Amino acid sequence: MDYSSYLDLPRLLGAQNPVSRARGAEAHDEHLFIVIHQAYELWFKQILHELGSVARIFGGRALDESDLSQAVNAAERCVKIQHLLVSQIDVLETMTPMDFLEFRDLLVPASGFQSAQFRMIETRLGLKRAQRLGFDGGAFDDDLPADDRAAIRALEAMPSLRDEVGEWLARMPFAEVTRKDGPAYDFSAAYTAALDRILSEDMVRIAGNARLTEAQREAQTGALTASHRRLDALFDDAAFAAQAANGAWGMPRAALEAALFIFLYRDEPALQLPFRMLRALMDMDELWALWRLRHALMAERMIGRRTGTGGSSGYGYLRATAEQHRIFGDLFALATFMIPRSALPPLPGDIRRSMRFRYER
Amino acid sequence: MDYSSYLDLPRLLGAQNPVSRARGAEAHDEHLFIVIHQAYELWFKQILHELGSVARIFGGRALDESDLSQAVNAAERCVKIQHLLVSQIDVLETMTPMDFLEFRDLLVPASGFQSAQFRMIETRLGLKRAQRLGFDGGAFDDDLPADDRAAIRALEAMPSLRDEVGEWLARMPFAEVTRKDGPAYDFSAAYTAALDRILSEDMVRIAGNARLTEAQREAQTGALTASHRRLDALFDDAAFAAQAANGAWGMPRAALEAALFIFLYRDEPALQLPFRMLRALMDMDELWALWRLRHALMAERMIGRRTGTGGSSGYGYLRATAEQHRIFGDLFALATFMIPRSALPPLPGDIRRSMRFRYER
Amino acid sequence: MDYSSYLDLPRLLGAQNPVSRARGAEAHDEHLFIVIHQAYELWFKQILHELGSVARIFGGRALDESDLSQAVNAAERCVKIQHLLVSQIDVLETMTPMDFLEFRDLLVPASGFQSAQFRMIETRLGLKRAQRLGFDGGAFDDDLPADDRAAIRALEAMPSLRDEVGEWLARMPFAEVTRKDGPAYDFSAAYTAALDRILSEDMVRIAGNARLTEAQREAQTGALTASHRRLDALFDDAAFAAQAANGAWGMPRAALEAALFIFLYRDEPALQLPFRMLRALMDMDELWALWRLRHALMAERMIGRRTGTGGSSGYGYLRATAEQHRIFGDLFALATFMIPRSALPPLPGDIRRSMRFRYER
Amino acid sequence: MDYSSYLDLPRLLGAQNPVSRARGAEAHDEHLFIVIHQAYELWFKQILHELGSVARIFGGRALDESDLSQAVNAAERCVKIQHLLVSQIDVLETMTPMDFLEFRDLLVPASGFQSAQFRMIETRLGLKRAQRLGFDGGAFDDDLPADDRAAIRALEAMPSLRDEVGEWLARMPFAEVTRKDGPAYDFSAAYTAALDRILSEDMVRIAGNARLTEAQREAQTGALTASHRRLDALFDDAAFAAQAANGAWGMPRAALEAALFIFLYRDEPALQLPFRMLRALMDMDELWALWRLRHALMAERMIGRRTGTGGSSGYGYLRATAEQHRIFGDLFALATFMIPRSALPPLPGDIRRSMRFRYER
Repeated sequence: MDYSSYLDLPRLLGAQNPVSRARGAEAHDEHLFIVIHQAYELWFKQILHELGSVARIFGGRALDESDLSQAVNAAERCVKIQHLLVSQIDVLETMTPMDFLEFRDLLVPASGFQSAQFRMIETRLGLKRAQRLGFDGGAFDDDLPADDRAAIRALEAMPSLRDEVGEWLARMPFAEVTRKDGPAYDFSAAYTAALDRILSEDMVRIAGNARLTEAQREAQTGALTASHRRLDALFDDAAFAAQAANGAWGMPRAALEAALFIFLYRDEPALQLPFRMLRALMDMDELWALWRLRHALMAERMIGRRTGTGGSSGYGYLRATAEQHRIFGDLFALATFMIPRSALPPLPGDIRRSMRFRYER
Repeated sequence: MDYSSYLDLPRLLGAQNPVSRARGAEAHDEHLFIVIHQAYELWFKQILHELGSVARIFGGRALDESDLSQAVNAAERCVKIQHLLVSQIDVLETMTPMDFLEFRDLLVPASGFQSAQFRMIETRLGLKRAQRLGFDGGAFDDDLPADDRAAIRALEAMPSLRDEVGEWLARMPFAEVTRKDGPAYDFSAAYTAALDRILSEDMVRIAGNARLTEAQREAQTGALTASHRRLDALFDDAAFAAQAANGAWGMPRAALEAALFIFLYRDEPALQLPFRMLRALMDMDELWALWRLRHALMAERMIGRRTGTGGSSGYGYLRATAEQHRIFGDLFALATFMIPRSALPPLPGDIRRSMRFRYER
Repeated sequence: MDYSSYLDLPRLLGAQNPVSRARGAEAHDEHLFIVIHQAYELWFKQILHELGSVARIFGGRALDESDLSQAVNAAERCVKIQHLLVSQIDVLETMTPMDFLEFRDLLVPASGFQSAQFRMIETRLGLKRAQRLGFDGGAFDDDLPADDRAAIRALEAMPSLRDEVGEWLARMPFAEVTRKDGPAYDFSAAYTAALDRILSEDMVRIAGNARLTEAQREAQTGALTASHRRLDALFDDAAFAAQAANGAWGMPRAALEAALFIFLYRDEPALQLPFRMLRALMDMDELWALWRLRHALMAERMIGRRTGTGGSSGYGYLRATAEQHRIFGDLFALATFMIPRSALPPLPGDIRRSMRFRYER
Repeated sequence: MDYSSYLDLPRLLGAQNPVSRARGAEAHDEHLFIVIHQAYELWFKQILHELGSVARIFGGRALDESDLSQAVNAAERCVKIQHLLVSQIDVLETMTPMDFLEFRDLLVPASGFQSAQFRMIETRLGLKRAQRLGFDGGAFDDDLPADDRAAIRALEAMPSLRDEVGEWLARMPFAEVTRKDGPAYDFSAAYTAALDRILSEDMVRIAGNARLTEAQREAQTGALTASHRRLDALFDDAAFAAQAANGAWGMPRAALEAALFIFLYRDEPALQLPFRMLRALMDMDELWALWRLRHALMAERMIGRRTGTGGSSGYGYLRATAEQHRIFGDLFALATFMIPRSALPPLPGDIRRSMRFRYER
């Protein structure tokens, strides 16, 4: 056992074979192009490794709580890796368009959009086939080899991270917290009352804003009313189902109610891990959006608005997916329903105590 | 003279006065909110200082070349500062929505969109009033105090960085390089010939791509033809004027021809500084887009899709400006016209020599 | 209330007054020099704000656990700010030595080492006067104005963050976990047994390493034995006191025992917040070291090994403090005593259960 | 040709084979450990690719100037990659000591210090065998396979980057700039006069600093005199040779004189590329130091002060190499000899003109 055999370096470092070299005129920068994409693929594999581990932890019904810590660590590691994926673009940007064009035509029709691992990550996270942006007139996976297509189909048939997190959240007892003694605590009633007060104040502020034209006032009032309606649906199965049918929500209602509870009472020790999990999911969404935007801008600097090597508009596609290929939009939407810390309805003492530890003697 | 008086610390560190403290119940996080915005304003002032210096250098007709180095350094420093502006969002994201809401209502109607310095930066760079996104139904500066509005109007009446760079580029003699002896070298002819070859190959590739449907083939052929037409216009005053009238270009034709020359022959020692200037301008555009996107995502995490303190949709506005408030799109567009390094028409020897030094004995 | 008055911009943006301008020949880069130091001071103030909040939370004996969450957030925010402080050096590095020298002599004898806020941060964290590196032959605060010196003395008389965390940890009941029924669980016995096994294996490995010379073998065996002795002292008041008297430890023994427990059983839900606090403290130490190193390298690039404006060797001083001004070295030292996860003695079931919640129905 | 075969993904993604899996109990984090080291090795290979390209460009005596641009780009790309290498540590820090210990013993005696590519980078840059820190009592390469040792020896026999840059600089005609007409311009005379003025002022300042004790005054005066002597040696072959024999310098005298000229007159267009090359070399030195420090701190967090898997003290070794394994210290030392921009002796007009272009009509 030595370093080189442990890392399989002969294999790893033998895998950089520029086409331009094979054609007899090596383009200096093709080596970078290969290395950076290989580094991406290594990290993609690591992300899939972490997501697989999260899936195993969430997959069974009974979630051991010290395992939850492992799941959170895995999710947060994915976030750190995504930071790295974004930073790698700095290195790719040292390649000039002319140096890229030197070997670009040799790559046709290979294209970064054929990364099966990336498609698997999207699928694993929860991106649905129907939600995907049409790609070059066909499906996103038309270009992939048959076994990659099959692997993606198989993943699609399994619960995604979003599904699993949704189910785990929905199992939480926060909607109607049960107590050993006395009546259940009805979170939704207490909370709706608090939020209603806040939203009414917003309504008053809009009405009193002399700077607004009538049209603007109507628009803002309308937006607020719509927020109200979305919120009400969070506590009403039928209304929620109607909104979800229109694509407004991607997780189950009970999951979002639990997520709301977690966001609000995140300072309670018992909610530390659940909150970190939700935050990691939002970080992931944000960083994929960032990566797509930077990727799009880099592609634009490299080839302008030309057709990509795979036959598609790299810039437009990447830019559009930054908006549309979002997985955890539900969690961002909940921010609309936050209230000031001081307006937060206090939890009854016995419930609060049940969410704490006694660290001190 | 000591450290504290040099930096005017009593004044600087006496300027953090949370409204919530004045109201008798200090919200812990308001201090962060103030400090981070003050840090932004300090850096905005520095950016204006640098842009003012660039303007002074470019402003006169005769540009001393060692001054060009100073201008490039100033522009590159702006880019470094913009990296910092993006990083600061990481700190703001440590504030939770509930902690923000604790003091948010006290701020109404103050809003970050009222930063006069930021508006001056946009204007100084070259953002035109007509190009600006409508803001809450009014002009972007309706909310600013009268003297800030006047300062912005004054800046609008002056040449912007884009104007100045455009004029400087247009003065360059690259379109038809004059020689001491013999006929002028016609860059556009040599280059168009080279590019035509490349674009024809693209056309052949599209025609031969069996995977494309007829509709796709037409779309791609159409895009290529449009690229062709845009390129031809780069060397044709009338065609260019027609495209510019439709908003396709923001700089003068001669400037873009020079910019194209610089991009292509950037390795020549004489073109080092001009190229770095162009790259810095593109970096600025890219980093403002990035800052707006991250700002938008942060706002969404903080208040969801609520109305902002200034009475506007923060998320939607920021997200839209990331696309529309672009200044140096022309330079990105030139990437469409790049060719492989090996296909680059070699410059005649005497011209090439005139762009070099003799470093060695 | 508008943006400008809220942020006190007239005051803030009126505080940049280059000396070189007053002398009639403004050096362009002095503005940057002022702005960056002012940005540092703003962030230092924010760090002191956060550390003050942590002190208030830890200060009282009874620590409410949802307040612990606030303390952890404050500490983690300091870490994020420190990342920014490091990044700011990138901007300062855009200044060339010659541009700095243009106004450097005007600053004498002002010096960045006179930042009272920075000294207060060091003190607040737990840096003792005796531990500080001698500065230019005098005390580190000789150069500060009298009121700053008094403020630092006052802080020195109060418990530092290290003191407070130490006391809080020492109050934890982990050393001998009490149970409702049955005998107490003796953590130290179970753990020492596990670790002994590991260290013995290390001893065997050293003995069997044919590559080592006799001298090397002795050195490594000696190091291991010393580790052993340090570890034993963790569970023995007298031995610990002897080591602490030699400067080997800065926190109380009971605190370090609790910290060790937390590191080992960090996956337990009840230990999430305590662990994040410890990690934040280590991150702070690491980032101050990083900031000092980068600061030192930057100073070296700027003025070489010349005497600084305050009359001292900037490079040497900064480089030495990166090692010596460390606060939480105890926590790093505990890493020596970690064992593989699978070798971790399982906690008795009832204790384990008491450290968990029931998230699910 | 598709994406997967182009990148040789079956080979690349088949090279992650955790030992713990082979032993029947896969440690989750070993996959990360392998992937991150493989990513390091990919980037090391890219750095070697770039350094090889620089060597080819500098290797021949006649350096074509547009090739210089390529060499600078390659060096700057190495710097960007080094930023990434530092960032990767953030990901590794998500692994906890206990998770590392789970598989650490399986790796013995493999160790990161056996990375042949890293040793080749050090050698290629210019690290001499004699300058290297003793490693575990033996030579740094004792542990490497025979062919790696041979490859390093072969590299040692070739000129390093420092050698090549030194020779290139020494060939520059700046020491005594020859003119077509009239006498040569003697840079050293003009510059020494300017610097003498500056250093004398420093001497006066020290003498007049009432805060200094006699001992301090002597120390500072002594340091200044030593600076003087070092500077004088820059222009005196015999004095320089004496200092170099004591290890004070690593490059030839003529090279450092040219480097000084470049630093001083860097704004001249002709010096843009040479200056960027020097800056990239200093950036490399700085980033390797940073990487070693962060690596050391990370190792300390992971295993404390235990012996590493290769049988050595990871922390102490890494920390010491951050100081000692420096390649371009000469360039940092030149900062001591900088003067204010306004004190810079102006170049004679004809020489100045020869270092410029005429960009404008």
